[in-house]
Amino acid sequence: MAEIPNGLKLALEQIGAEIDGLFETILSLPADSRSRLYDAMRYAAIGGGKRLRPLLVVAACGLFHIGRQQALRVGLAVESIHVYSLVHDDLPCMDDDDLRRGKPTLHKAFDESTAVLAGDSLHALAFEILADEATHEDPFVRLQLVAELARAAGPSGMAGGQMMDLAASESTLDLAAVTRLQQLKTGALIGFCLEAAAIMGRVPLESRTPLRGYSRDVGLAFQIADDLLDVEGEEAKTGKKVGKDSVKGKETFVSLLGRERARQQADLLVAQAIEHLQSFGGEADLLREIARFAVARDH
Amino acid sequence: MAEIPNGLKLALEQIGAEIDGLFETILSLPADSRSRLYDAMRYAAIGGGKRLRPLLVVAACGLFHIGRQQALRVGLAVESIHVYSLVHDDLPCMDDDDLRRGKPTLHKAFDESTAVLAGDSLHALAFEILADEATHEDPFVRLQLVAELARAAGPSGMAGGQMMDLAASESTLDLAAVTRLQQLKTGALIGFCLEAAAIMGRVPLESRTPLRGYSRDVGLAFQIADDLLDVEGEEAKTGKKVGKDSVKGKETFVSLLGRERARQQADLLVAQAIEHLQSFGGEADLLREIARFAVARDH
Repeated sequence: MAEIPNGLKLALEQIGAEIDGLFETILSLPADSRSRLYDAMRYAAIGGGKRLRPLLVVAACGLFHIGRQQALRVGLAVESIHVYSLVHDDLPCMDDDDLRRGKPTLHKAFDESTAVLAGDSLHALAFEILADEATHEDPFVRLQLVAELARAAGPSGMAGGQMMDLAASESTLDLAAVTRLQQLKTGALIGFCLEAAAIMGRVPLESRTPLRGYSRDVGLAFQIADDLLDVEGEEAKTGKKVGKDSVKGKETFVSLLGRERARQQADLLVAQAIEHLQSFGGEADLLREIARFAVARDH
Repeated sequence: MAEIPNGLKLALEQIGAEIDGLFETILSLPADSRSRLYDAMRYAAIGGGKRLRPLLVVAACGLFHIGRQQALRVGLAVESIHVYSLVHDDLPCMDDDDLRRGKPTLHKAFDESTAVLAGDSLHALAFEILADEATHEDPFVRLQLVAELARAAGPSGMAGGQMMDLAASESTLDLAAVTRLQQLKTGALIGFCLEAAAIMGRVPLESRTPLRGYSRDVGLAFQIADDLLDVEGEEAKTGKKVGKDSVKGKETFVSLLGRERARQQADLLVAQAIEHLQSFGGEADLLREIARFAVARDH
């Protein structure tokens, strides 16, 4: 497993602290019986996770000289959606997980009904964040961000991919089907991170191909690495249960390709992702490092 | 129980057909394994419900000469949020209901995980609808609608009220607390319906007081009527289980005031709501009829 470069390590630490700080502020406790809801949202959202999606937003915004505060708020919105999806995904009627980010899942620490509501609340919060003028001075940009995130999170994006995943337990998927499923389930939200930077950078639609290619390849590489971690990883490092996929008899990139070819495929995708950035100079180095990190991480 | 006027009856039938038609179009089945998700969303969203919220939007838009198609799309968005909240609210870990709008609840007809995802999908869909240019030609108006709906649906609105409702089973609420709870749980979304018309009608903030007063009073009157129906209603007409509140030992307007005073209070609120509309002429008649219907309905 490759060493994480110091620059990326610092960038991950910094964004972790910044996203925590923003969640702390936006989720300050109300002085009524909703406080339990906010406590639950804070429990799920603060102090955990790699913050990969916010980092992708910030790194891509670096290409277009977009202010860090604006990038961070968009990162906060996409992380809100990501956290809500984890909370609902962990529910007993879904994946039924007890451990997430190294601590009990939200419905274990609180209860199921609070977990449903906290997920729903983080979902709405994401759109509240994007629509607020603190995110971007141009309302048309904010509106495009909202439209893009709603699409990426909804039935034609992430939620649609989760449904495919549920349906997958009743059929046998081939490589094309698993690829399509993951492009929706995890790829749509990762795609949003790059698209958001293009929206804020006012990049014309016809010039977004490199960024879209990058996010598609990084998203799949990231997922293959996740599948490998489920087979090879340690619970102590990943902070969640491992070996779940094979127990459930779910087809993954690893079950279909084998470990060796899956790792080769992930490496190929990372090289391809970096290739998409060839027209950029040093300002894209963080995106290149994130691509390498997607497969080199141990958690 | 008062007779529903013919005009309102026709308006309810018409909007029911229109909202069904819009859901039919927007939820056309995809040709992959997400079709089960869309089936579930259609099951919950099409062919049921009073469509009170879309009707409120349309009626309020009538005050400002806003096109019916625009009003209907905003009504579709708020109904998507309403339906998602019912789907999640009916889950076993929440209210655990078997019957909704006269048929088995979504998790009974499908399964719990599909119900969670269908609710989440309708939630995202609402914002996708509002952000789309078909809803309004002015992006700034669309953005304000998004911001307002996100606030009304999230932890400082509907979801916050639902949390208060869950917390209420562990304490004894007084009238002020029940009022506050209901102003969030059902009032925030009803408030959005009127606010949306004000946004599209470009009504200055300082001139929105009558509409806000109307929605606050109608929202509470509607909730008191709901509490009365839970005590006095028939399952065949309400399409859902009755007598639930007292079984759960929940404080309601009826448990706190008694039936007689609760009905008087509802009637008073309706009169007050209509009073808020005094500066409007015949163009507000539909809003006046809706206010009366809020307490006269038997379902």
